[in-house]
Formats: sequence, C-alpha cells, structure tokens
Amino acid sequence: MSNNYVAIMAGGVGSRFWPASREERPKQFLDIMGVGKSLLRLTFERFLALCPAENIFIVTNGKYKEQVKEHLPELTDNQILCEPSRNNTAPCIAYTAFKLQALNPDANLVVAPSDHIILQEQRFIDALQKALTFTSSNDALLTLGIEPNRPDTGYGYINYEPIASEAQVHKVKKFTEKPPLEKAKAFVASGEYLWNAGIFIWKTASVLEAFQKHAPAIHEILGANLSCYNTDTEQAFIDQAYPTTPKISVDFAIMEKAENVYTIPSSFGWSDLGTWGSLHVESDKDSQGNVTQGDSILLHDTHNSLIRISPDKLAVIGGLDDFIIVDESDVLLIYPKNREQEIKQLRGKVQEQFGNDTL
Amino acid sequence: MSNNYVAIMAGGVGSRFWPASREERPKQFLDIMGVGKSLLRLTFERFLALCPAENIFIVTNGKYKEQVKEHLPELTDNQILCEPSRNNTAPCIAYTAFKLQALNPDANLVVAPSDHIILQEQRFIDALQKALTFTSSNDALLTLGIEPNRPDTGYGYINYEPIASEAQVHKVKKFTEKPPLEKAKAFVASGEYLWNAGIFIWKTASVLEAFQKHAPAIHEILGANLSCYNTDTEQAFIDQAYPTTPKISVDFAIMEKAENVYTIPSSFGWSDLGTWGSLHVESDKDSQGNVTQGDSILLHDTHNSLIRISPDKLAVIGGLDDFIIVDESDVLLIYPKNREQEIKQLRGKVQEQFGNDTL
Repeated sequence: MSNNYVAIMAGGVGSRFWPASREERPKQFLDIMGVGKSLLRLTFERFLALCPAENIFIVTNGKYKEQVKEHLPELTDNQILCEPSRNNTAPCIAYTAFKLQALNPDANLVVAPSDHIILQEQRFIDALQKALTFTSSNDALLTLGIEPNRPDTGYGYINYEPIASEAQVHKVKKFTEKPPLEKAKAFVASGEYLWNAGIFIWKTASVLEAFQKHAPAIHEILGANLSCYNTDTEQAFIDQAYPTTPKISVDFAIMEKAENVYTIPSSFGWSDLGTWGSLHVESDKDSQGNVTQGDSILLHDTHNSLIRISPDKLAVIGGLDDFIIVDESDVLLIYPKNREQEIKQLRGKVQEQFGNDTL
Repeated sequence: MSNNYVAIMAGGVGSRFWPASREERPKQFLDIMGVGKSLLRLTFERFLALCPAENIFIVTNGKYKEQVKEHLPELTDNQILCEPSRNNTAPCIAYTAFKLQALNPDANLVVAPSDHIILQEQRFIDALQKALTFTSSNDALLTLGIEPNRPDTGYGYINYEPIASEAQVHKVKKFTEKPPLEKAKAFVASGEYLWNAGIFIWKTASVLEAFQKHAPAIHEILGANLSCYNTDTEQAFIDQAYPTTPKISVDFAIMEKAENVYTIPSSFGWSDLGTWGSLHVESDKDSQGNVTQGDSILLHDTHNSLIRISPDKLAVIGGLDDFIIVDESDVLLIYPKNREQEIKQLRGKVQEQFGNDTL
C-alpha cells in the first residue's frame, strides 16, 4: 500500500503537563507514560503497522526540528515539515496535503496528533485500515469517532447518521464543539454522538479540493508555488507564505462546512492525555491507586496520586490523597489533582512574578 | 576576662532534619533558619559577646574538621578538637576540660551545643555572665535551666531549690530524664522544674575534679598524658585513648551524681530545634502560618506548613495543611508535620531499600 501516508502533528506544547512540558521541551518529546519512550516515539512506532517509515511525516514547529530528529532518527529532513509560525491546524494540514500531493498524486493520508495514547493498538490500526480503504475509493473526509464513555465537556462531539453508508462508515451530520454538561449527557445517552479525536483520513486530492472550496485563502497561499514542494526551495517558500495564512482550525475551516464528511465509530482505548489527571486515569495504579514514575519513591499513607520524580532522585511522601506531584530539576509542583485546572493560571503567575520564560 | 572560654559541641548529625541533614553534612553546618548562616556560625558569633574568638573551641568529629574551618575561618587548628569516635558527651567534655586546663589552669568554661537557637541573645549572654561569675568563685557545676512553657516530654527536667543560694543561682535537687506526660504536667505546674538545655558552666578544675570522683575511668584515660595537650602529639594520643573511654552522657556520668550542681532559671527564647516541626514553631510565619525558605515559592491554599526549597528552584504548591516539604537536589520529602516522628524510621527504610548511605 505505497499510497498510504501518515502525518503526525507535533507542533504543540502540551502546556497542561507543566512543569514537565515547557515551550522548549513540549509534551510530545517527553516520556509522559514513564515507559522509556516519548509520546512522539510511541506514536511513530504505532504507525509502522500502517506504512513504512519513509511514508511517515512529522509536522512541527521549526524550533523543534532537532528534537524530532533525535527522537526519530529514521527520518530524512524531507519528512520533517517545519512551520515557521503557529497558525492552528488548517494551514498545517493544507501544507502537508500539498507536499504529499506533489510527492504522490494518489496519496491517501492519516493525520494524527503526536501526543495521544492508544491502549488497543490493533483495534486502532484496524479502524485506520478500514478508513484508508474507504477514502481510497471515495472522495471523502473521514474523522475517527471515539465512542464516549462519559459526558466529557472538554471534547468536540460528532453527530453521525445511525445507518452506515458502508460497513462501519457513517456520514457525519454535525459537529458540536465542547458542549455544556447537560448537552453532553444528552449526547452520550442518545448513542448518536462520538468524540472528535482529531484523527483524520483522506486522500490529499480530496482534502485539497475541500480547502479550495471552503478555505480558498489557505489554498491559494500554500498552492502558489507547487513546484517548490520536496525541493530545496520548499522551506524558503513556507517561511514566507505560511505565516500569512489565516489562523484557523481544520474543523472550522473545512470539516464543519463540507458535505462529504464521514466517521467510523471506534473504541481503542484512546485518550488525548490532556492533563496530569488524565494520565493518572489511563495509567496502571498500585494497590493504593497511585501512579508513580521514578526509581526511588517511598509512599506512606498516600492514595490516588500521580507522582513523577526523576530517576536519580529519592522521594519520601506521606499523608497525601489525590495529589499531583511532579519534580523537575528546576521546578517542583505539588497540587490537588481535582484542582489541576488552576495550574495553568499559576504558571502564568509564576512567569510574571519570577520573570522567567523558561519555566 | 581572659579566663573565659567557650566550647561548642559540634559532633552530632541532627538526623531529624533529614533530608537536609546527612551523616556527611550535619545540621550544625546547615542554614536551617534560612538566614544565610549555618547554626554553627550563628552560635559562634553569639559567643563573641562573651570572649574573644581565640578563646572559643569547637569539639567535633574528625571528619567534620574541614567543614568547621570553612564555617569558622577565624579559628586555628588547635581550637578544633577532633573526636576519633562518638562516645557521647562525658568523654567529649572531659577531653575539652583537660585541654583547656593545660592551656590555662584558671579556665572558666561555657559548654554549649552548636545547633540550638536563642532568640533573645542579650538575656542569654547576661545569664552566662552571671553563671561564669558564680563558677569563677565557687567550685560549682552549673547548668542553665530553661523555664518551661509547656509539658514537653522530649526534654530532661531539673528540679531546683526554690530558695536561691546566691542571686538567681539555685542548687539543683534532682534531674529527671524525659518524663511521661502526666509527670511533665505536674513538673511544669509546680514551678520548681526547668528544662535541661545542655548548656554547662564550670571551671575546668571543678569539672575535672567531678570526673575524678564520679567517672574515674574517663579521667584516668584522658588524663594519662597531660603533657600532650595543645602540642603536636595531642591528636595521636586522643586517637588512641579516646575510643577506649566509656560511652556515657555527662548527665549520667557526673551531673546526676555530684553534690555541687547549680542552675540559673532562665528565659531567653531557647529551642534545641530538634525537628522540622520545632523549626516551624520558632520561625516567623506568613499570614497563612507558613514558614518558607527559598526564593521562588508560590503557595495557594496552603497553611501551617514548613517549606524549604533550594534558592534556584521554583515550587508551586497548593492544597496542603500542616505539612513539611523539604527539597534537596537528591531527595524530596513531603510529610504531615504532626507525624514527623515517622520520618526517622522511613529514612532507615530508604537506606535499606535503596542501599544508599549518603541519603
């Protein structure tokens, strides 16, 4: 299946994993799971079941290029797309499509984030195989839909046609961004809604056509110099053109407007792993409900907590319930797990108060 | 008053201040108060009101000699007495007495720990001046008595004669080691008991006579080669003789046996600063009852806690009440303050489990 490609989006920061994640050392480059591999590396290896390494491309911010090469030494420079600015997902996806289209006009593509976890990899690959088969023979924009197990108000929801268009592939009726709780409860109860995981499958031809129709400005800017892609002049063109594209998400730019949008209801142990709390939920726990990352952690009367300590450090911790403890060499965080939404604000306060952007 | 001398006992570890204190870096060498000076340095400077620096001697374990010189560069090598082994306080005090007696037969001496705090220094110095005046003209063993403000079961108590022998100097009737709570309450209520702070005043001649009478083995061993003291052969003699002395406290060896024991009931903001909890009690607190040591500590909804973080590290801490948090480069301790007596045991467990004696 040499027409199959994967584009891994690795340009974000994952700031809710502070103090482990920093602007200069984003979440996807961290061993967030405590398994000895970064999230980016785990994501890359997962996709090797779908296509060879040379068909996997990484889209990242220019300043992370060296970190990508470090984590994925298999890749050539041409496989690392460097955004000169953060313009949200639509320009990023259009850039990837133009580049792969120039490489292979029949390119059939999976676009996926670099920092999610997938517990049931085979089911994930099966769903993607099915999606790629569908998009290879249909002019379709397909987004994997996750069967919701709770009325989470932090996700976008996909309302889908209950009757499949083709085995397991359903037409999407409507997207709803992060709904209020009552609405989310109704969505889950109806059985006709899925979470939007931001994992897209389409032919580059199909997605470029959608851009032309629904986001013509982006199409025009990034399509202005097709001959540059995959040549020495690509980066110079992108450095000049990309920052002038509208900053907009692919959901707003094309998915919510297009008619040919499909989903495959799926269940493969997915988490966008947005916060320390979600890492605690997804990880294996000890008998007291603790998740520990570190070689020398001694816990006493401590429960339901997430404790991440560097391997060369000893921690002796007692009397804590439902806490997040993250110790980095320059920052120590100790915070109630159920109040972790306060951390982002505190981080801002820190940078203000101590005037240090690296924190 | 060139007959006045001070001997500062600086051979202990202060293990209850783990993980700040370690075998290789005892409490007295740490800036426990967060004021920029070690406890030893603070103690030394306090005594400069009593006698010149050349009359202040430090008794320590041989392995801490370099650290003493670092903290007290004013001292000559002859002012640092190095014990080759830890034999408790009686041999240590006898060694000091023999050495100062050889230097000045009229030596009148204050013996004091290196790791206590004294909040009202002038009252402390006044009490010592009075004590030195008394011992200079009386064959007396004097121990400062602290007026107790609570029935603490962690201290030894001094029962004293209510009628003074001489202005403010009272004869001691009896010592009681760490009493049970009910007894301690009765002691405090009676008004006839004081805490034994381990701060002694006596002429070297008086204390050596007491050793000869009540602890003759120690006197014999350390008095076997009087001509060696303050010469090049002193250390070799001590290295050979000292480890053979009985391991016994000065309280058991002489104070509880001697007849000529006196005390001065005193009150000068004393604390033996035995634990993190006592440091919290004695230190200035913020409006939430927290004591913080560190340059970049951001607290949120945190109360009555002691937080000690190295100056170059940021800490963001929320939702804790009554905790001890100590972050050293290689060890992090987070523990309920009212359960700090468990820490010592946990430390033992740590050394066992992780097989690391430096921890």
